[in-house]
Order: sequence, then structure tokens, then C-alpha cells
Amino acid sequence: MLHYRGRAKRVLESLGIQDYDRIRVRRGRLTYEGILIPRPEILDDDHIILKLDNGYNVGISLNGAEIELVKRSSIIKEERAELGRFDPRKPKVPLIVTGGTITSRVEYSTGAVKSYERPEELLDKVPELADIAYVEYVPLFAEFSENLTKDHWTRIAEEVYKMLKGGAEGVIIAHGTDTMHYTAAALSFMLRNLDKPVILVGSQRSIDRPSSDAVLNLIASAKMAAEGEIADVMIVMHGSPSDEFAYAIRGTRARKMHTSRRDAFQPVNEPPLALVSRNSIKVINPRYRRRVKGESHVFLDAKMDDKVALLYVWPGMPAELLSDVADRFNGFVLAGTGLGHTPKWIIPKIKEIVGMGKPVVIASQCLFGRVDLKVYETGRRLLEAGAIPADDMLPEVALVKLMYVLGHTKDMDEVSKMMRANLSFEIGSRISLRDFPPCWGVCNGL
Amino acid sequence: MLHYRGRAKRVLESLGIQDYDRIRVRRGRLTYEGILIPRPEILDDDHIILKLDNGYNVGISLNGAEIELVKRSSIIKEERAELGRFDPRKPKVPLIVTGGTITSRVEYSTGAVKSYERPEELLDKVPELADIAYVEYVPLFAEFSENLTKDHWTRIAEEVYKMLKGGAEGVIIAHGTDTMHYTAAALSFMLRNLDKPVILVGSQRSIDRPSSDAVLNLIASAKMAAEGEIADVMIVMHGSPSDEFAYAIRGTRARKMHTSRRDAFQPVNEPPLALVSRNSIKVINPRYRRRVKGESHVFLDAKMDDKVALLYVWPGMPAELLSDVADRFNGFVLAGTGLGHTPKWIIPKIKEIVGMGKPVVIASQCLFGRVDLKVYETGRRLLEAGAIPADDMLPEVALVKLMYVLGHTKDMDEVSKMMRANLSFEIGSRISLRDFPPCWGVCNGL
Repeated sequence: MLHYRGRAKRVLESLGIQDYDRIRVRRGRLTYEGILIPRPEILDDDHIILKLDNGYNVGISLNGAEIELVKRSSIIKEERAELGRFDPRKPKVPLIVTGGTITSRVEYSTGAVKSYERPEELLDKVPELADIAYVEYVPLFAEFSENLTKDHWTRIAEEVYKMLKGGAEGVIIAHGTDTMHYTAAALSFMLRNLDKPVILVGSQRSIDRPSSDAVLNLIASAKMAAEGEIADVMIVMHGSPSDEFAYAIRGTRARKMHTSRRDAFQPVNEPPLALVSRNSIKVINPRYRRRVKGESHVFLDAKMDDKVALLYVWPGMPAELLSDVADRFNGFVLAGTGLGHTPKWIIPKIKEIVGMGKPVVIASQCLFGRVDLKVYETGRRLLEAGAIPADDMLPEVALVKLMYVLGHTKDMDEVSKMMRANLSFEIGSRISLRDFPPCWGVCNGL
Repeated sequence: MLHYRGRAKRVLESLGIQDYDRIRVRRGRLTYEGILIPRPEILDDDHIILKLDNGYNVGISLNGAEIELVKRSSIIKEERAELGRFDPRKPKVPLIVTGGTITSRVEYSTGAVKSYERPEELLDKVPELADIAYVEYVPLFAEFSENLTKDHWTRIAEEVYKMLKGGAEGVIIAHGTDTMHYTAAALSFMLRNLDKPVILVGSQRSIDRPSSDAVLNLIASAKMAAEGEIADVMIVMHGSPSDEFAYAIRGTRARKMHTSRRDAFQPVNEPPLALVSRNSIKVINPRYRRRVKGESHVFLDAKMDDKVALLYVWPGMPAELLSDVADRFNGFVLAGTGLGHTPKWIIPKIKEIVGMGKPVVIASQCLFGRVDLKVYETGRRLLEAGAIPADDMLPEVALVKLMYVLGHTKDMDEVSKMMRANLSFEIGSRISLRDFPPCWGVCNGL
């Protein structure tokens, strides 16, 4: 089989080259060697795509190029993936697919990103998965993650639960990256007594782009799910701008910190759980739930009240904003400034809302560090008004947790107690100096 | 003079030691040498405070200590500061004081932080300032920065303008850290044609605490204001957890990223402008306005409309939230997810608000990276609805800029044009790989 056309097809055919053959291309002073990848949509008839040994796909113009067949592919890619997926001697790892860039490709004519027409394309493109796990493809829905709600979170949690009870050694969830960390937090609270890895994976660039992060992310996810010792909800995504390793980041500590970089996800207030390459898993953070062999004893506790608002305060924010929306929500997370402060005129309004039986949790918009309402007058007045400090929880995690807590109780004392208890490693007792990354000078050799 | 009492007073007096003398204290196996600092409030009668040569203040118990006078202070600290402040041969640098931790001290009995009773205490504590500049103390107001509004920003801008027109070589503004970056952005837009340095400085820990960052921050600020080449609005605060250097960060690119660390401020999407130590200024980022010698040609353009809201979206955020508050504001900044997305059900509401003649600007809650509304369907629909992308502006900067822009025009095309134009280096054309700090592994030697 050869999925090229026009000039590229003529040149490749004349050399007897087929899809997935290993070839060498010399062009000017550069030489590329890699696997010929069938191009999903052809921009022109002149370029081919090679998958290099470092995992990158590169597009190469055939104009003026010398091509040489290095090694014939012994088996076509789809067959290999197909065989692997159905090799039950490997650890069983379902891939639950929910949508996002990782299930999309670039429409080369417009530059826009569109969903696959045939969902299994994802597995076909990463035949290496079959070497690691017995991967079952489980399409659940196809939605970009900005459009998800707590009902989607519940559906994912139910599916994960079903898979784990059905004997899966771990579960991978392919997911859009925009709100992946919110979903990760939700699953962390909903899946109690977790004893197998649950991995969220996505990609910042679609899999057909030369710079895609999808392949490494999927391979690292499969390794963590099939072989890893850590039985938490994790996000597994690139750990650096290169294509060398991924981080496994705890679901309650992850945040998307960059719009487009492949290493956009970052742990906040703790180190990554592990560093995962194609060949190894290096555990960095010793604080995790351990995998238990055999039958899973996970249970599902997916009750959530999504009538919770997350509001970031700003200088001059009018107190009336809170009155405007007070009726619409059963609880509020305010991302305050610094140690967790709000403008002073907001505090009586918070007291009023707390008086209505609606909890107000104070996180910090700094994101890193810990809320402390005992240092300054503003903080102490917030405590007196009944606000609940979020400790070192991310505002987004505090939001999801408050949804979860309000799904279980509306009793204000209970809410406060649960919010301040560590349910899923979302609260830590100590933040190391190493856990704050903005060491611009250190990283840049100053 | 000796500002100690009880046992400490008796011991020190018996050796003829006075405030600001250089002394050596041996206690067990440790030896400390430094300047004896008068203690502002005495917790017990047993401890003294030494200012070490590395700039740190340490508290030392006299219990079992051997004390030795090393060098008599030739001049008392207040005199030295007083003299320096009135040495008109040095560059004239007013210190405008607005409040915050840097103008506060710890009440040792409760651990709470309180404002100074006598504002000049700040200058008395950093006599080194007198070596750098002719510092004039200008108390403007005393407010913790979470309580500031655009009226405070205007007052500060007016005062800076007056000082620069009055011959100042640069201006320092002592300010609370909670919302310092918002004020910095506001001044960056209000002070047009700036040709002298304008420095915001604060401290994360009050100046009387051993680990205070106030001294280095003030010295670095004075250096930048008196000697530096960069004539932008900047935040000058610790650049690392040590006490060795500060960063000068552009006012439109700074964000407080940690609740409590001394190096909490961080540049986003560009390098720091400069690295400032006690002895040197090292310019890192070549993109800045240059100081012009002689008379300042700055002008003040402080018109702002503060009826602007900053809302961070979250999964499941109800569209009705926007309706609830639409009447209260003349413009909105939404911090979307990823490249700048909102839940799809929000988009018709955005269109409605834009139809009311109220601009809606889309930033990204990732903070790092650039908004791009052309890649995904959601983004393109946001553009069709009339949303204005914030490019690589921080959400907080987009908020302040929209206030500024709406202070000048309500014409939607004009607003869009101004928001997308680079007024004060708040928008950049290129983000370097180095400008994203979350290289946990790199920083930690992995």
C-alpha cells in the first residue's frame, strides 16, 4: 500500500517503496532516515512524511532529493496495531476516548483542526502501543474539552469504574487539554479507593503534525497504565519542550500553564509523580497510592453539585457582582490576591452569603503557595466572615472539590471540615523550594 | 543610644555597646558578626537582632552567648539616613509610599502584621539608600493593595508625573504586593512617553523579620531608579529565593505567582528586563524605553473606565452568569481555557453583549502563551461573535488595558484596534522557549 499521489507517488513507486518502509532521503547536505508515514491529507504532491527514530515526524520535499529503500516493512501498520490490540497476554488497558486534539487532525487546506472521521485512526498511528498493552478502544463521546460539564465527568468516571471492575490493569482517557485538569480533579474525587492507574492524556498538536506530542504522550500513558506502580488519577503529557519524556502529574495538582507548548501541564506545589520515557518510569514523588494486584476494589462516588462558581477577584471588583449571582450558586470559590485576600468591601457580602448557608472558599490567584488568612487584617476578617481557606489547593481544584463536597452535604460545618481535609492529595503539608518553577535565572544559566 | 531593655540591655550596656555598633556573638559552636539593629518591638528581653553582611537580619538569644565589640558605629543610623536623604548631589529619587507589607512590621505578640506608626521608619532601616540616591519620602496613602481601585492608580500616576516634572531622575513607589502587578500595568498605560524609571517595590515579609526581602528590594529599586537605563514602569523584587539579586520586571508583563515566596513576581512571556544586585545592573531584555537625560517629557493620560469585569471561565460555567452582570459593566475580559476558548453555550451570550456595544476580550487562563482563535471551531465562532483576542497579554493586564481603552473610546472598532495594538510592550511578537519557566526537571537537575 502507498498512500501518496502525484509526483511523490511516481517517485516512490518507481523505487518499489511502500507505506511504513524504512527509507533514507538525501536532500542537499541533509540526510533523513525513518519510516515512511502515509500522509492523511495531501497539501501538495511533492512532500513525504518520515517518522524519525527520535519519534518526530518530518515533512520532506522530494524536489532534488535522492531516495533509498533501507528496510522493507515486514507487516503493515494497521495489521500490527490490530494484532497487538488483540493480544490478551499483555496488560489490559482500555483507551476511553472523549475527544480533543488527540482525536483530531489538521485540515491542511485551512489550517483548522477537525475530528477524525474514523476514531480508530488514533490507535493505527501509534502501533507501539500494542507492544505495551492490550489496548481496547472505547469511544465515549467526541467533545472538545471546553464544552464538558460535570455530567461528562460522571460518564467518564462510570466508564473507568466499569473498566477497572472488568479487569483492566489501568485506564487511559484521551481528552482535550483545555479542561483536562478539571476533569482530572473530578475523577480524583469521584474514584475512591483507587488501586489502578487512571491516566488522562491529550495532545497540544494533532498527531498528523510533525511536531505532535501525541505519540510520546500515548506511549508514556500506556506504560504508566500497564506497568506503573502509581494508582492515582494522573495527567501524562510532555515534561519538556523536547520529545524525550513525559511527566505523570497528579490529577489534583496539575494545571495547564501554556496555551500551546507541548509541556504545557505543570504540577503546582509538588513535584511531578514520575518522569516517563519510552523505555522507563522514574518515580520522583513518593507520595502516591500504590497499585494493588488482582481485582480492583475501587468504588464510585460521583455525586456532585455543579452550582458552584469560581470567581477571581480584581482591584475594584464591585461587591454587587456577588449579589447579582448569589442566587444562582450553592457555593463560591474566590481566587483572592496574595495569601488569599479580597477587597475589604467584599467581606460583608461574603458574610451575607455564608449566612445564607452557602460556603465561600478562598483560594489564591497566585496559584503557587498556600492561602493563609491569619497574617493580615483582611485575612482575619475573612475568617470571621466564615470564609474557608483552600490551603495549597489550586483555585480550579477547590472549585471541583466544592462541587464534590456539596454533592454530599450542605451542612456548613461538614463542608468546612471536608474542604480542609485531604481527600485525594489535593492538600499537602509542606511545599518544597523546588516545587516553584519560576527560577528563570537558574534555568537560563544566570 | 541603645533600644533594648531588660537582660539584653544590661549585657550590652556592660560592654559599652550601642545601636549600630558592629559586634561579634559566639553562641555554642556558632559565631555571628554584624551590625546591632534596634529592635522595634521586644518579644522577650533575651534576644538581639544582628544585620549580617549578607543583608539578612538574624535574631540571637543572649543566653550563654559571648559578645564582643568589633567596631564602634561612627555615626548613628538615623543621622546617616537623614544626611543622605538631603544630599542633593545624588540623583533625586522620591519614594512614594502607598502602604503594604513594606510599610509594616510584625507585632511579635500576635504574629500579625501592622502598619508603621512613624512612616519614615522605612528609610531609617535602609541607610544604604542614602549612598545611592537623594531620597525624598512622599507618603501618599496607607492601604493594603487588595483595597486599591483605579482612583488610587490615578493618584499614584499623578504623583509620579508631578515628581518627574519636578526633576526626579526616577521614582520608587512602595506598594503592597497583592495587586502590585495591576497597579504596574495601570501606570504603564497612564504614563505616556515615559523617559525615566518608575519602580514599584514591596516586600513579601516585613522589614523587621530576619528573612525580610525589603532591604534588597529597596536597594535594587534605588539603583534602577537612580542609575538604570530603562525608562519603563517596572516591578523590582527578589529574583530568587536567596537574597542575592532582584529582577526588574516590566509592569505589563509581571504577575505575582506565589503567595509567600520572596521571588513571587515573575515575568510572563518575556525575560526579566534586568537583574539587579547590590552592586550592578545587568540588562537581560533589550526591548525597553531608554532613559532621556534632563527634563522629563512624560505626559499623563489617566482616563480610565473601571466598569470592566475579569471573569475566568470554568467547565459548566452557566451562560446566565454573564446576563446577570451584563448591565453592571461596560466591557469584559474572559480568561478562557487553552488558546482562549469558552464553553460553546457562552458564545451566543458574548455575541449579545458585543451587540450591546460592550467589548468582550478573550485572554487565556493558562497565563503563558498566546491566544489564538483561528485554530479551533470554538475560537472561530468566538471571533464571529465579535470577541477580541488578547494576544499574549496576561488576563489581568487585558483587564487594566480595557479600562484604559474604554476611558478613551466606546467605539467598538476603535476599542478593538487599541486592544490589539502594542501600547506599552504588553503585546509581543515572539515568545522565546526560555520565557516559560516550568522546566521542573531542568531546574532540578533531571
